[in-house]
Amino acid sequence: MISQTSEYALRAVIHLAHYSGSARTTQQIADATRVPSGYLSKVLQALARAGLVRSQRGLGGGFTLARNEAEVTMLDVIRAVDQPLERINACPLGLVTHTELCPLHRKLDEAVEWVEASFGSTMIADLLGKGEVEPLCDASTEKDVTLRVTRNKSE
Amino acid sequence: MISQTSEYALRAVIHLAHYSGSARTTQQIADATRVPSGYLSKVLQALARAGLVRSQRGLGGGFTLARNEAEVTMLDVIRAVDQPLERINACPLGLVTHTELCPLHRKLDEAVEWVEASFGSTMIADLLGKGEVEPLCDASTEKDVTLRVTRNKSE
Repeated sequence: MISQTSEYALRAVIHLAHYSGSARTTQQIADATRVPSGYLSKVLQALARAGLVRSQRGLGGGFTLARNEAEVTMLDVIRAVDQPLERINACPLGLVTHTELCPLHRKLDEAVEWVEASFGSTMIADLLGKGEVEPLCDASTEKDVTLRVTRNKSE
Repeated sequence: MISQTSEYALRAVIHLAHYSGSARTTQQIADATRVPSGYLSKVLQALARAGLVRSQRGLGGGFTLARNEAEVTMLDVIRAVDQPLERINACPLGLVTHTELCPLHRKLDEAVEWVEASFGSTMIADLLGKGEVEPLCDASTEKDVTLRVTRNKSE
């Protein structure tokens, strides 16, 4: 449905929202979100270019959200790193006689429209799972990763 | 929303449905659907492996639909060439504590569910635009391509 890059960007932003205020290093975010750190680094750069995250250099530095998680939608994050949800406004075949979309492209566009509306009305704050049993990428995740990595190594 | 490969597969199947009964060569399908013939060839092979199209060798040979277009869904075609619409059944991070989907993956899965239901209930026959002004990949398309190619060459 969405690209790997978009999924990783969403995980990173949700992680930063969990830690709102405290800067997180690429490695900390990578561990919690289970994204390879080289890949994550590129994702974070794209998010920074889009003004969604901010990086601070030096000791105690790292990434923080640049905007309030209640004002950033899933779609903002996806669009910052990818172009997968473009509406189909004109015939992709470039057929000059197709002044309206054909039934195929109308159907495909209808799906994009639905997904766009769904992701565009879901705030990052809605995804934090506050008060729910299983939030994504919370502190317990990191502990879990550590345990699992240790276990794998000793196996 | 869907991959380039899926889009090309849908165009090819719709084209074959327009010509139900008559075999179409890769070049004829490529011209009408505006897909590079090398790429299209791979797409047609995948569709053949999935039992959606049939190829006949020799003079007058080419591709035909292997199943009735009223019994093949958009989703059948997409799934024959790609795996983009998989439901999310378990935590993609492999978190052992996530026995249920977190809010992020629930939201993403909800979108897959909607799209799957939409494409899974749309038959190829529904996309032929019969009685509508602008069907995709009909005979006029090929004429249009010829005209356009000629025009580009002389420019």
